[in-house]
Amino acid sequence: MIIDCHGHYTTAPAAHTDWRASQLAAFREGGRAPAYPAISDDEIRESIEQNQLRLLRERGADMTIFSPRASAMAHHEGDERVSTEWARACNDLIARVAGLFPDTFIGVCQLPQSPGAPLDSSVAELERCVTELGFVGCNLNPDPSGGRWTSPPLTDRYWYPIFEKMSELDVPAMVHVSSSCNPVFHATGAHYINADTTAFMQLIQGDLFADFPDLRLVIPHGGGAVPYHWGRYRGLADMLGKPPLGEHVMKNVFFDTCVYHQPGIDLLCRVIDPGNILFGSEMVGAVRGIDPGTGHHFDDTKRYIDAAALPDADRAKIYSGNARRVYPRLDKALRERGL
Amino acid sequence: MIIDCHGHYTTAPAAHTDWRASQLAAFREGGRAPAYPAISDDEIRESIEQNQLRLLRERGADMTIFSPRASAMAHHEGDERVSTEWARACNDLIARVAGLFPDTFIGVCQLPQSPGAPLDSSVAELERCVTELGFVGCNLNPDPSGGRWTSPPLTDRYWYPIFEKMSELDVPAMVHVSSSCNPVFHATGAHYINADTTAFMQLIQGDLFADFPDLRLVIPHGGGAVPYHWGRYRGLADMLGKPPLGEHVMKNVFFDTCVYHQPGIDLLCRVIDPGNILFGSEMVGAVRGIDPGTGHHFDDTKRYIDAAALPDADRAKIYSGNARRVYPRLDKALRERGL
Repeated sequence: MIIDCHGHYTTAPAAHTDWRASQLAAFREGGRAPAYPAISDDEIRESIEQNQLRLLRERGADMTIFSPRASAMAHHEGDERVSTEWARACNDLIARVAGLFPDTFIGVCQLPQSPGAPLDSSVAELERCVTELGFVGCNLNPDPSGGRWTSPPLTDRYWYPIFEKMSELDVPAMVHVSSSCNPVFHATGAHYINADTTAFMQLIQGDLFADFPDLRLVIPHGGGAVPYHWGRYRGLADMLGKPPLGEHVMKNVFFDTCVYHQPGIDLLCRVIDPGNILFGSEMVGAVRGIDPGTGHHFDDTKRYIDAAALPDADRAKIYSGNARRVYPRLDKALRERGL
Repeated sequence: MIIDCHGHYTTAPAAHTDWRASQLAAFREGGRAPAYPAISDDEIRESIEQNQLRLLRERGADMTIFSPRASAMAHHEGDERVSTEWARACNDLIARVAGLFPDTFIGVCQLPQSPGAPLDSSVAELERCVTELGFVGCNLNPDPSGGRWTSPPLTDRYWYPIFEKMSELDVPAMVHVSSSCNPVFHATGAHYINADTTAFMQLIQGDLFADFPDLRLVIPHGGGAVPYHWGRYRGLADMLGKPPLGEHVMKNVFFDTCVYHQPGIDLLCRVIDPGNILFGSEMVGAVRGIDPGTGHHFDDTKRYIDAAALPDADRAKIYSGNARRVYPRLDKALRERGL
């Protein structure tokens, strides 16, 4: 079984995206958003079947842990109320996808974060999504300011309410920023990768997992720069008087395989324990083209994992065993289906 | 010959560092800095002989392209006048090191940048350092705000005066941030690496080298996350309608080898053309400890290059050929010494 831990609904129907534009326009004018539009099951089916589902089948994966489009979360837009409305709309749409394709998609929610706002509404939305919609995790944005980086580090007590709820519900978070409103940071080429690197270093500096020993965080895009600079991070942990990374953070931190070339995946598999790697593609996502060097899509990451020098048992962990361990509610759903 | 392109004077005499503290204290109180202290040649000799020079000899390199401590540039402190005073003091000290050890150290200057300030004083200081002190390049901080990222991208015309002066003097810049005043960013574990990644993506998005075809930029720390995500960057260039990276940026951009483990260096050498890699160690610098896995210092990067599967001709480029090409004033100085 092959589980893609990192898929976004980047192909949501236009009515959904248009509503977001109306919502933000209404906010700017001081009014209320229009009613959310009717979107038919057929529209949702079509948007999935022609894109994510087609690619999943062509490439040979079985299911996707599916969340709203990350770049569209845009927590820096509007205010807490706007973010709450938008997160609910996005998560309800993900729940409809999972309802229409229950064998293939399972939900992860967007949180209604807003710069400077407390996390109460995020806690409530996570609870709603997990207990009412059957979701198995959330995407947590370490920088809701969208490239201004005004929030405290993830190890700060500001974040503890969401970590407490995650621990209570036994769900992980993928640490995933959204679009950047800072012109220095290209979203998928700089902001995403920087956030991954930044979050990992915050976890080294702090001692978050002493307070939350069962908390699980997935750092996407292959862990940002971290595996490439693994020696730097091991050395910095040592300089900071922290235990070795395997004890200090790697019982709780996982990297996905959204690294779009063979040498990158080979490095990831060489330096990171296979128990900490989750298969992911981020498709249909950041990089849509075909690599002229291989003739295959950059984001067809399964090809790289298949070609990596890995024992079969490790490949099985990366493809599904780790995901079932990190997302126990997914594991439960699969076991209920006899899988 | 082995040239380390990335060394900082992290061991400067205490009187120098103390003066900086006094300067900033005076600025906060609205006064002028005290006179710069007398520092003897012996103090400078000792600070170098016991540290950089000892390590250079132990590890088997011949010379270092040497600049003021990057984390102490702190362009976000004080104002333009304060940065100008501090840059001159730092650069004059580097010139003294190069004067005392002319066979081993050659200078690269700190620029008196200040958030929001025009680059006139940076242009003047670069000219002074190159024409009067014999320096061969500069360190350019893409984020003088120190982790607030308030400057425009490097491709913006804001930066053109310094690129014009660099082109006129035929000197490169290392794109190097300083310390972070934003608590989310650990300096050497996040801010440095993020800045490298960010700068590279800005260069992909823009078309800077159409305006400055001979400009040369060294992106340190192995290019941040870039080589690990080389497929992402090739794909993003394609999505943005840019030429392949080899044409678009890699005639002008170089990465150093400050990557502190063998698998990282192996990846760098596997994906980046050897003509674009410059040997560097960043010592005595970011990561000072000994890797328990190897028994050697993390930042003894020569060991990794020696062990990398490289043809001798490529290793020679990385060790000195590329540095002589990227820093033509260094090449000229070496040729004058018959090297």
